[in-house]
Formats: sequence, structure tokens, C-alpha cells
Amino acid sequence: MPRERFYTLTASCPDRTGIIARVTGFFAEQRGWILESSFHADPGVEGEAARYFMRIEVRADSLPFMLAELRERFAPIGAELQMDWQIADSAVKKRVVVLVSKQEHCLYDLLARWQSKELDIEIPCVISNHDSLKGFVEWHGIPFHHVPVSADADNKVRAFAEMRRIFEEVRGDTVVLARYMQILSPEICAAYPRRILNIHHSFLPSFVGAKPYHQAYQRGVKLIGATCHYVTADLDQGPIVEQDVIRIDHSDSPEDMVRYGKDIEKTVLARGLRYHLEDRVLVHGNKTVVFR
Amino acid sequence: MPRERFYTLTASCPDRTGIIARVTGFFAEQRGWILESSFHADPGVEGEAARYFMRIEVRADSLPFMLAELRERFAPIGAELQMDWQIADSAVKKRVVVLVSKQEHCLYDLLARWQSKELDIEIPCVISNHDSLKGFVEWHGIPFHHVPVSADADNKVRAFAEMRRIFEEVRGDTVVLARYMQILSPEICAAYPRRILNIHHSFLPSFVGAKPYHQAYQRGVKLIGATCHYVTADLDQGPIVEQDVIRIDHSDSPEDMVRYGKDIEKTVLARGLRYHLEDRVLVHGNKTVVFR
Amino acid sequence: MPRERFYTLTASCPDRTGIIARVTGFFAEQRGWILESSFHADPGVEGEAARYFMRIEVRADSLPFMLAELRERFAPIGAELQMDWQIADSAVKKRVVVLVSKQEHCLYDLLARWQSKELDIEIPCVISNHDSLKGFVEWHGIPFHHVPVSADADNKVRAFAEMRRIFEEVRGDTVVLARYMQILSPEICAAYPRRILNIHHSFLPSFVGAKPYHQAYQRGVKLIGATCHYVTADLDQGPIVEQDVIRIDHSDSPEDMVRYGKDIEKTVLARGLRYHLEDRVLVHGNKTVVFR
Amino acid sequence: MPRERFYTLTASCPDRTGIIARVTGFFAEQRGWILESSFHADPGVEGEAARYFMRIEVRADSLPFMLAELRERFAPIGAELQMDWQIADSAVKKRVVVLVSKQEHCLYDLLARWQSKELDIEIPCVISNHDSLKGFVEWHGIPFHHVPVSADADNKVRAFAEMRRIFEEVRGDTVVLARYMQILSPEICAAYPRRILNIHHSFLPSFVGAKPYHQAYQRGVKLIGATCHYVTADLDQGPIVEQDVIRIDHSDSPEDMVRYGKDIEKTVLARGLRYHLEDRVLVHGNKTVVFR
Repeated sequence: MPRERFYTLTASCPDRTGIIARVTGFFAEQRGWILESSFHADPGVEGEAARYFMRIEVRADSLPFMLAELRERFAPIGAELQMDWQIADSAVKKRVVVLVSKQEHCLYDLLARWQSKELDIEIPCVISNHDSLKGFVEWHGIPFHHVPVSADADNKVRAFAEMRRIFEEVRGDTVVLARYMQILSPEICAAYPRRILNIHHSFLPSFVGAKPYHQAYQRGVKLIGATCHYVTADLDQGPIVEQDVIRIDHSDSPEDMVRYGKDIEKTVLARGLRYHLEDRVLVHGNKTVVFR
Repeated sequence: MPRERFYTLTASCPDRTGIIARVTGFFAEQRGWILESSFHADPGVEGEAARYFMRIEVRADSLPFMLAELRERFAPIGAELQMDWQIADSAVKKRVVVLVSKQEHCLYDLLARWQSKELDIEIPCVISNHDSLKGFVEWHGIPFHHVPVSADADNKVRAFAEMRRIFEEVRGDTVVLARYMQILSPEICAAYPRRILNIHHSFLPSFVGAKPYHQAYQRGVKLIGATCHYVTADLDQGPIVEQDVIRIDHSDSPEDMVRYGKDIEKTVLARGLRYHLEDRVLVHGNKTVVFR
Repeated sequence: MPRERFYTLTASCPDRTGIIARVTGFFAEQRGWILESSFHADPGVEGEAARYFMRIEVRADSLPFMLAELRERFAPIGAELQMDWQIADSAVKKRVVVLVSKQEHCLYDLLARWQSKELDIEIPCVISNHDSLKGFVEWHGIPFHHVPVSADADNKVRAFAEMRRIFEEVRGDTVVLARYMQILSPEICAAYPRRILNIHHSFLPSFVGAKPYHQAYQRGVKLIGATCHYVTADLDQGPIVEQDVIRIDHSDSPEDMVRYGKDIEKTVLARGLRYHLEDRVLVHGNKTVVFR
Repeated sequence: MPRERFYTLTASCPDRTGIIARVTGFFAEQRGWILESSFHADPGVEGEAARYFMRIEVRADSLPFMLAELRERFAPIGAELQMDWQIADSAVKKRVVVLVSKQEHCLYDLLARWQSKELDIEIPCVISNHDSLKGFVEWHGIPFHHVPVSADADNKVRAFAEMRRIFEEVRGDTVVLARYMQILSPEICAAYPRRILNIHHSFLPSFVGAKPYHQAYQRGVKLIGATCHYVTADLDQGPIVEQDVIRIDHSDSPEDMVRYGKDIEKTVLARGLRYHLEDRVLVHGNKTVVFR
């Protein structure tokens, strides 16, 4: 059941009085029909200034002009309120490039959601450092690029350059690391801030680094989890978008935990990705505002 | 850490364009500082009209007038938008009358929250059909009324009349049935719509009626729960405010379930009561909008 | 990482003293290495006799004889204790026939687990009343049977007979209804007791019958769930194997609930199926003992 | 509803064949009625030897001798299997000394469970470094000891010596740190291994040390939790008994998290304490086996 076309304004600005009135007043003047609206005043951590966040969905056909003019007309308000703002169009599908290695659980999960239109996106290609999932991806009619990454530094530079070239060529909006087991170069992280989503197989900040389920087993925790976060140059330190956990007990081996963990990983990645694609995630410092 | 004083507007009205702008515009004109705001457009179930819900917290000291004048000035807007609205003052503590029987877990929990000021309310009295918790209540400096309820119809009428008299006398705002094991009369339910909160010891609509944990044991469910709802004349059918569940397994007896259930009951009741007291619960037909 | 081969004894019998000693004594005499063991004394509901349940995994190579002889030697003990018992061999993969309709989320999820060997089973075929998932199934090298089911009674009889013929022909052990949208005939239910697993899209016993998410929306519940149960001739009433829930709120439409629900459905089905395949589920009346 | 009297054997030993048979055979010879039994083979982490754990409840009146003779008769088996074992008597109530500071939520919760006999224990006294909860404790008929602890090293030594003296004088079995805000001395930790339970207000190993909710707020996690663990000389590093989490979002301040956290803290402490009191927790290195 397709929803009617709508525009999504997301914005943040220094907090002051009258922000909501100014923005919704603009839409009201045009008789714009607001479908959903969320607001949040963030006091900021440790001496940061208070900042205001908002997300508003407006029915496209309720406005007397098109998106380009909407942006043009909204610009003075954005400037007046010192806003960092953008307006997305629900009719324009986001283009999501998926990176995988050998593990298939997140890829199957994402393609099932794409196939059933639950995720209403374009997947212009899948990139992998292995070729084992090539057939499965291509069966879905999606191009597959095998870009091997070796330990050799020169090879790495070339591989990441190639991946970046592909991403630009297919005009990707978002990169999803669906259990991609290579660490992206700082250059790539810096080039696409808030556009690369990773699923980390632990409940961060616990168990950063390698083999988190084995670390969890050693520590004897009673719940394990997974974390979907934006990728930054600081490994496992980017803004957290979504997390969840599952109960384990003493009878579970590290292999059992890996298996349970996969169920959490794919669910948390899918939820985080959906929030991201629907422009529900705004970033403030190293934290996120998620308007569910 | 006490929050600054604020007013909370809650309102619902037929959905149309410009509602948020009209209301927030009013506050903006007065330079009112909005602390928190939530909006929801409800399409309605089965042919009901679409309805709009909102909750806005405004800092009291940011407005150039007092509450009475705020209400007076807001009234024309409420009328214009055909609103059902009210404005509460955070400086006026809600008066909550607690009804209990013999089980003490919810009462201990509520009084601990009241004692620590987590629940910033007045408890003008506790009423019970037994006297076993009298000492505990009175130690806290709270008056305790023992109003026995027998199976005899005349006695019931008198008992409920007495409870109602007490509630009026202490100028109660809200009644909490903290595992009160008598069914309130339809008259009382009708007299205080959306003001009586009950905690039901099952995950409604499963296992209505008596001994829900035993029913759950018989059916072999793998999770049990509790439900906080507004009381209506239809037993166990009122609008649901909050629910939660806990995992059980085949090794748990009905008595184990009762014990687990108590933990859910007190937590769900406390959460539901908090939402209610903070004016976060709006009712639409037989459902609730809960602005967390 | 494949586990060593093991035999799994599952048994139930009237409760008495000495059961564990008798059974584990038998294995100890043979120097059988017990990997995992679980016991449960069930008092029974409403006048049923108390019954004892057990599950024991023994390493195959620790025993001085093969499975056939193990069964032969264990038989007198089973008879002595009036046991209902069976011994499974981890080296013999269970043969699971999957039934689907048009929704693909559970099928993708099961095939991902099968592909990665997380589910170490044979899938001799997939049967559907639609042909839309034929290509996806066949790409995995799994035969696909399109058996249309119409509202016509004669057609139904023929269709179910055909499905049963296929199940027998491929020597299926278990049928999984992975969101199969037809009600199986009482004959089929009776023919394969405790061998047909269904995933129901509600937290039973709430919202039996059609469109449970819409029922949940109407009632305004705050959590929705899914239930994996054995199929019996009583629709939605069979023994419950596994359940789980997810939190929703007033802003979620029935369509949102359907989407959230799918995530619960596939996880709960996968967990329930795994318990079943690992012989962790024993049935007592209309309830299950699940040795996790 | 009191359960029949029973003895609980808990034991661990090097893994080998025949352990269950040897132990349950002993009980079977005496026609001992086993109510509940749990077994676990732990492979050990990083080069530790595999170890076997068990817990068995036997009905007292099914055995032809008393506890002292049971222990005497079981001793040779314990020696033969190189067991670390003990047998507890359900008729002997555990004596639990509760330590608190100013926060009352865990204390109210524990006393409610004690008052209702859900926790069937003796509380010979409560000790606090503040006197604010004296009246509440004494109202329940429980002695209260105010033992102030200052930053001065000598005072600390004296205070901890006094607390130890009290604990010995009242013949305490277990110490519960119910949000006691002082760090116990290494001597006390060493003197009572596996007998001091703490509730830590974070989901360990995340956010060790002070102000974990503020740390969680800074990091922007989406779930917060609490951990019940045995106290060792390594702060926040002891064996974990129980954990749980609750969902938060961007709108929650550190103060909100403190409030949510309290609900998790008291529930997790009560669950962990119950497991401990029912002899369900066995320790292996720095991890626990919890037979629920």
C-alpha cells in the first residue's frame, strides 16, 4: 500500500523561542498538510550549546508548488534561524550500496526487505571482498563487484579507490556495511560523513575490536547485543543509531552466541537503516536524535 | 533536581491544516519557551473521523502572564479549532488516592517512588477493603481508610458511596487501583472517566477475568504480562495505557508466574501512572495516545 | 565448526523415584559421555498425573555399539519405566518441507540459515499455493511444487492429498508453515501430530483468526507478537513452542505493525523450528516442555 | 503456599563419564525423590580444564535419614569425584545483611519481598553509612546500624571492622549491597568470597566506575542496564549473576536515565539475590553458572 508522496524537512538550529511557529507557520500559509512532525530540544553535553532538532513530513500535493520552489521559499527561514536543513522527496528512492564479505545473514535479510518493497530503495550494486555471494546477488538482478582487499597497503589504497569510484559512478546515497569485515580507510570515512552505516556485533561500548562474542563469553555477560552506527575514522566510536540485545546463559558457547547475535545484527541493521533512509536520524556531536 | 515550573497544554481536535502553526504561533507571540512538544494525527479506526492530538510544555516564567490569563487567552483558539483542551501547572501537585487490598507489592513500590520524590504527588489517603496495610501506610504519614466490601449488595453500595465521599472530600484527581481486588461499581467508573487507573495482571486482551496466571499456565504461553488501563464499566476493556511482559518456561508453576508477574505489575503501573500524571495520555475512543 | 556426532534421547514417563539414575546408569555402564542433559517433573494441569520429561545427548563414539543396538538395549528400560521415548542421531539430517504462500520474509530467513548451515537440515522441496517464489527457491537448488488451493471443496481435498503425497514421497520429517495462508485439513493435522509447525502472527491466545494486526490496532495494545506452535485440528490452539513480542505505540498504523510483526515472525519461527529439530520440544497435553 | 522441605545439593567437579549416574544413583538407592535437577558441562575458557556443575533438590521426607547423615553418606562420593560440594536445607532460612546508603528504591523493594514472604529469609539487620532510612527499617522490626564512613583512612578501617563485627555477630550468610555507595575494603571482599552481592548501575562491562548513567548519556547508547555481581577486590569485575536493560532515547536526560535505571536495578538485584539464596549460582573462574 504505497503512501501518498510527501516531502520531509529535517533541520537543526540553535534553540530559541518561536522555531516551531516560524516553520509550521510557513507551511500553514501554503495550506501544507503536515502528516507527521517531531521536535526535540537538546541541552547538549558538557558545555555544548543547546540545539533544536525537527523533522516534518508534508503532503506534496497539498503545496501549491514543486520541490525546487519549496526549497527556494524555505531558504530565507533556514537562514534566519541559522538552520542546517534539507528537504527530501519520498518519490526519489535512495540509492544504497551494500558491502559484504562472506557472511550472508544481513544480505539475505536486506534483499528480502528490498524484494518485498518493505525497503523502497534502489540497490545499484553490491560490493564484496569475496565472490561467494555473487550468484545470489546477481539472481536478484543486482550488479555485483568483487573488489579483493589484501593486507598489502598499496592494494588497500587501490581497492578503496575502486570502491569509491564505483559508489560515485552509481550515484550512491548511502553505504551499508552488512558485516563487511574490512576497516574502511579514514579518507572514505571522511568523504561520506553520516552516510556509511555499519552493524557492529556487540552492544557498544562493550567489547570493541575483534571477536566481541568471544570477549562476551570470557566476561560471562548475561545479554549480548549489536549496534548500528555511523562510521567515522574512529573505529567503533561513531554515533549510535540503534541497538538491541538478547538473553544468553552459561550453557551458550561462543558459537551459540555468534548464532544468536546474527538475529540481533540483522534486525538492528534493518531498523537503523530504515530510520536513516526515512531521514529520521539527525546527528548532534557524536550522538543521534532518532525521530521514530 | 527540580525542573523549572511549566504549563502543559494537552489538546485534541479534528484534523486540518495549520493546527500546529496556530497553537505554537500563539505561544511564539508571547515569547513562550517551548520545552517539549508532541503531535499526532490519528486516522481513526473504522470510519471514525481523523483527529489531531498534541501536548506542549511551556516554561511558566517565559510567559508575560499567569495561568488564569493563559487559559483565557488560549480559549478562543481552542474554540476556533474545536478543541478539547486543558492546561496543567507543574507547580500544582496531583492528588492521587491509592486503593489496595492485601497484596503489598504495588503499594510499597508507589510509596518508595513518592518518598524519594520520583513521583512528585500528594497522596491524601489510601483506602483498602482490608486493614493489614494500615500500619505501613500510616508510618508514612498518610491517612488510611478501611472500607470493607462484602458480597452483600447493600453493603457494596454503601462501601462505594463511602469511598466516593472520601475521594471528593480529599479532592482527589486520580484513583490508582494498586491490586485492589474489588470490581468498582459502574456509577463510580462513569463518574471519573480517564481518572481511575488499574493494573491488570495479564497481557490484555489475553486472560480476562479471574486468575489470569493460572489461565496462562493452562495455555502454556511462553511470556506473561501486565496491563495498566483506564477503568470503564466494561471490565478489563478500558483504554490501555501501558503493557509489558516477561519470559517464562515450562518449569514455572502458577505460583512462580504470580511472583514474576508482580515485578511486571508494579513496573507497568508506575510507568502508566507517570504518563497519566504528566498529562502524556490522551484518549481516543477506546485507545490511548501516549506522548512519552 | 561441526560438533561431534551424538545421539539424543528424549523421553517422558510417569514420575517416580530413580528415573534419572536408571537412565544415566545405563549410559554410565557403557562409559557413554553425556554432553547435555535436562530433566523436568511436570505436576500436570487439572488432575492430570505427574509426568517426567528428559533429554540427554550422548557422544556417539563414546558408546561401544551403534544406534540400532543402543535402541535395542535401551528398550527394556523404556518398558520398565513406561516411557514414551525415542533416540535421534545427529548424523541423520532432518528433512523439512516448507510451505509458503506469497509473503517471502520467513522463506528468505529459513533459506539464509540453511545456506549458511546454521540450520543443518535437508529441504527436499518447497510447496506453495502460488508460484511467485518458484524462481527464488529453485535458484537454491531446491525443488518447488506449485499446488493451487481454491475455495472449492473438491479442489481442496485434491490439493491436500497432493501435498501429502509429495511429503511422503520426499520422506519428510517436519512441515513448516512459513506464513502459508491456507488452513490445513483436519486429516493432515491428525496424520502428522507434533510434526507440523506454524508461525501465527499474533501473541496467542490474543487475536486468534484473521488479520490479528488489525485486531491489535483496534484494541490499542502496546506490544504485538508472534507464536510458533504445533498445528492441530483446532485452529490456533495447538501447543505453543515459542513466542516473542515487540513494542509499538499510537503512531503505528496496522501496516507498520505488519512490518514490525514480520521481524518477530521470522525470528520466532526460526527459534521454534530449531528447538523442534534438535529434539528439545516435548509435548504434554496441550503444552510443551522446551529444553533450551 | 509453603513448599515441602527439601535439601539442595550443589556441586562441581572435573568432567568425566558417569557423574550424574553416580550422584543420582546414590539418591535412588535411598528412594530419594528428586524435585528438580540441573547439570552443565563447562568446557572452560582459555585452557582451563572442563568442569561439571550440578544442582539437585531432593525432598527431605523421602530420605530415611536427616541432613547430618546425608552429608556423611554423600562425602565419599564427593571425594571420589573430587567434588566441591555442599547441601543446603530449605528449612534453614538464609541470614541476609543489607547495606544501604541514601537511595531507598532497592531497600523498599527488598523489604516488600521479605514482608510478603516472597523472599523467605531472615534480615538480622540493615547497616548504613547514613541514618536517613533508620525509621523505615526499624518500623519493620529490623535492627538498623548507622556506621558512618568518612574519607579518612583510619576511619574507614574502623568502620569496615565494625561492619564485619556486626556481620559475624548476627551470623550473616550473605551481604547485599543495595546501592551502598562505599567501596568495600579488599580484606572484606577476600573474607567473604561469593557471599557479597552488589547491584551496579550499568550494563557491565560498559561504563565501569562513577556516574555510569552520565557516561551512557555522553556516549548516546540506546539501552541502559544494571548488573548484579559478586563483589571481589577488583572493582566492578566480579562474576556476573544477572543483568537486564531498558530502552531509552535521545529525549531522555541523565536524570531520566537514573530514574529508569532504578527500576532495572531493583529487579535485577532481586532476581540475582533469589538465584543466590536458592543456591542456583555456581562460580567458575570469573563466570557464573546460574541454574534457573
